[in-house]
Amino acid sequence: MTGAPGSPGNGAGALLRSLLASGVDTCFANPGTSEMHFVAALDGVPQIRAVLALFEGVATGAADGYARMAERPAATLLHLGPGLGNGFANLHNARRAGTPVVNVVGDHATTHAKYDAPLQSDIPAIAGAVSGWVRESTSPADVAADAAAAVAAAREGQVATLVLPADVSWDPIDEPDADAVLLAPAAAPHPPPHPAALRAAAAAFTSGEPCVLLVGGDATRAAGLAAAHRLAAATGARVLAETFPTRLERGAGVAPVDRLAYHVDLAVAQLAGTRHLVLAGARSPVSFFAYPGKASDLVPEGCDVHAVAPREGSITTGIATAALEELADLVAPGTVARTAPLARPPLPTGPLTVDSAAAVVGALLPEGAIVVDESVTSGLGLPATTAGAPRHDWLTLTGGSIGYGLPAATGAAVACPDRPVWCLQADGSAMYTISALWTHAREGLDITTVVYHNDAYAILRLELEQTGAAARLAGDGARARALLDLGGPQLDFVALATGMGVPAERVDTAEGLAAALRRAAAEPGPHLVEAMVPPLLP
Amino acid sequence: MTGAPGSPGNGAGALLRSLLASGVDTCFANPGTSEMHFVAALDGVPQIRAVLALFEGVATGAADGYARMAERPAATLLHLGPGLGNGFANLHNARRAGTPVVNVVGDHATTHAKYDAPLQSDIPAIAGAVSGWVRESTSPADVAADAAAAVAAAREGQVATLVLPADVSWDPIDEPDADAVLLAPAAAPHPPPHPAALRAAAAAFTSGEPCVLLVGGDATRAAGLAAAHRLAAATGARVLAETFPTRLERGAGVAPVDRLAYHVDLAVAQLAGTRHLVLAGARSPVSFFAYPGKASDLVPEGCDVHAVAPREGSITTGIATAALEELADLVAPGTVARTAPLARPPLPTGPLTVDSAAAVVGALLPEGAIVVDESVTSGLGLPATTAGAPRHDWLTLTGGSIGYGLPAATGAAVACPDRPVWCLQADGSAMYTISALWTHAREGLDITTVVYHNDAYAILRLELEQTGAAARLAGDGARARALLDLGGPQLDFVALATGMGVPAERVDTAEGLAAALRRAAAEPGPHLVEAMVPPLLP
Repeated sequence: MTGAPGSPGNGAGALLRSLLASGVDTCFANPGTSEMHFVAALDGVPQIRAVLALFEGVATGAADGYARMAERPAATLLHLGPGLGNGFANLHNARRAGTPVVNVVGDHATTHAKYDAPLQSDIPAIAGAVSGWVRESTSPADVAADAAAAVAAAREGQVATLVLPADVSWDPIDEPDADAVLLAPAAAPHPPPHPAALRAAAAAFTSGEPCVLLVGGDATRAAGLAAAHRLAAATGARVLAETFPTRLERGAGVAPVDRLAYHVDLAVAQLAGTRHLVLAGARSPVSFFAYPGKASDLVPEGCDVHAVAPREGSITTGIATAALEELADLVAPGTVARTAPLARPPLPTGPLTVDSAAAVVGALLPEGAIVVDESVTSGLGLPATTAGAPRHDWLTLTGGSIGYGLPAATGAAVACPDRPVWCLQADGSAMYTISALWTHAREGLDITTVVYHNDAYAILRLELEQTGAAARLAGDGARARALLDLGGPQLDFVALATGMGVPAERVDTAEGLAAALRRAAAEPGPHLVEAMVPPLLP
Repeated sequence: MTGAPGSPGNGAGALLRSLLASGVDTCFANPGTSEMHFVAALDGVPQIRAVLALFEGVATGAADGYARMAERPAATLLHLGPGLGNGFANLHNARRAGTPVVNVVGDHATTHAKYDAPLQSDIPAIAGAVSGWVRESTSPADVAADAAAAVAAAREGQVATLVLPADVSWDPIDEPDADAVLLAPAAAPHPPPHPAALRAAAAAFTSGEPCVLLVGGDATRAAGLAAAHRLAAATGARVLAETFPTRLERGAGVAPVDRLAYHVDLAVAQLAGTRHLVLAGARSPVSFFAYPGKASDLVPEGCDVHAVAPREGSITTGIATAALEELADLVAPGTVARTAPLARPPLPTGPLTVDSAAAVVGALLPEGAIVVDESVTSGLGLPATTAGAPRHDWLTLTGGSIGYGLPAATGAAVACPDRPVWCLQADGSAMYTISALWTHAREGLDITTVVYHNDAYAILRLELEQTGAAARLAGDGARARALLDLGGPQLDFVALATGMGVPAERVDTAEGLAAALRRAAAEPGPHLVEAMVPPLLP
């Protein structure tokens, strides 16, 4: 039996009010029948903004991008196991990012489960593969507390999944007290850095032996980088950032940092000769993929590893920055961190290439921009050309699950409506979650998307070589190479964008890209620029 | 260490040759780095056709559609856990359809797993939620046998998932014998119908009491329907098909059948008064979703249920048809099945509506068409208007996981290159897997897609009422209703289709739809018609 019309007292209402009380006021949603009572409750809790996505991977990627910028979780609303499955890939990226996300997954009514109706599947199994916390609400009286617990779990820097059966959502709450708004318990204060670990790291820094400080998690924000630079300046250690940071603050006024390379040979070269590797919010470096005859573990032979703060939980606790600041006060008390000067490249002209496109971005990136980077091989020039741009944030593909860019840009723009979002997006990756453009338009988000259109899964051409597979091709390898080719037929991203309400234009010169980016900046709302670039390998 | 260039002797080569020997010659693929050796091996086994999808849900939906028509499995090629996650929703539909699918999921090298690299996740957990069979190959020498076992498992009418670590794919096969091509063992002959079950069903048919025969699985093909009709004609029983058949043969010359309604009230009305319910390849009927105050179990009070053949495995074994033929020979030895006459509706004119669009489809559906139906609320008129069309196959959304239509049409067209495929597709559902259109164009598939464009998740407007949620809306419910509205901005499916290489046009009259369908039929390759229709509920 359902609650009386207008009565707030059902599970869905309790869920929304509990989420709001715990600071969750944004929900990226793709609902279905089992979520109708959640949807109906939205008008009773108007402080919660519901953003519709046309595909669940957009909702989950948006929640990831949102949390990276808002520093608090958004909720998603997903429809049973298949909806969670559709959202899995970007939840995987959020898991690897350590961002807090609260999934609400609607399920069949508890009374319906035994009939194994067509949409039924093992939701906890799917959720468990990507969530640090999973719970199913079994009674409307429990929902408020379950939601508060989900938010608390997410705040530890993980994906928390709450399964909400339809009847638990629609049933009235019998005891009036149970409808009381619950607050998520505050996160436990993070444990201080372990003195012995700090002492060991301090000894490594001051040993006079080659030392690398690898920063990740929260330590790729400005404060952590400043502390890292003080240590480096005082001791001669080198600082590197993890390959795919959750949120890298950079540009003029921020202590600059190079990232550990994705390419295994380059990463090995960066770390060669290191005698001490200090980890602050970063995991011990491993190659992204295994390659025949190459090491997976990137720590050089004979190098000692000293972890002063874990990756896990660092995004939400700031533990790595705290450790670095304590270390810097210990080892480099009077040292001041160097910061990057404002230094943009000149605007290039001529045919668009990966290099000239990167220079255009570096020349025009606006103050306070949020860059969502899924440019893959087309973005290789970007770190250098944007290092001296005005201060900005750089969000990366933390879990390697492509299709993250357009959704994460959605969430970042919702979190920071006053900041311009630049989504630098490879063409192949864009197609996994292309419908995010519709949400850009629907919400009027200030997102400028550059699609690097090279008609290929260009990175797989490199990987075909790297894995030794290219050497095993029979004949001319045409059938294999066709699977890495996106040119037949050629995608038209201007048509795709305008078909979803986003103004778009195609450019093939550097001056064309610059003009298009300026036009986009001059107008409110989303824009897309299709940048025709040659692939790295033909 | 990898095998010598040109040598066929590695795990990837063994996999492809074993698949081919077992009759799998089609692979719907979206590869990544860990699948590069599989990709490289394709040129050495040119009998296997690899079809590229831009998103894994397209690949898995295509494998489902392929198997429904080819009556044998295709393979998919997916990239680690996130790729499998992206493919989950359409694998869920395949699981509910009972279609055979062989997933090949690439994984990190076995030596790499302990490093928990960014793309690592619990693949068996995700696979287990949607597969009847899961195995990880642990040695290249085992791969051929593992592939044969996967095909054998799929042939039992289920999703079989083989996890292939990158090193197992690239490592050479040491023992030459292990590279021998293996054949999947033939499926065990299906057990004959149980005599006691047949006797009980025969007694029900001849009891003189109200009897309904519910057919599903293989029994919705022409032979099963013919046997069902013989039983009905001889005994006065009524025949109904399951709500969402895997493959329903129908049209002129086939015994006609109504489907059990999706809407719970209508389904209850269809079954009211039934004293005996005989199940042949169908599950005992339950409502798709639970609704407050309504039954989940659709079997009327006091009705006896007699199952003569299970749903599971029926698609690949023909067990339900065999049981019905045996029953018909027993109960209705001299009876001939009635078949539908050729009877098309006249071509309507005037504004396009759900009804007039259905009449146009009924008037023009070509002989031998394969209809992939994800029309949802816009297709309510189709069963009636197409009942007398020339003989055709009708594929439906078996698992309720939307985004199935465009991918399944892909697979059906690959399986049956000489038959026209009509994909009748709702707009909201289309957006989950819209990139399938690119594969339609790339492969030059003879698919005519009609997108019913009503700017809404129209079925959710019904479900908002059905679930009682509409009665709980606060104020005008504008925020809730906005989550069911797709009109702002309005999608432009002509732009989306042409942006992916599929010629397209928009129509808003019945004569416009007819003309567009005729133009599409006159030209080879894919087409899309955007049919502007009003939603069922405003």
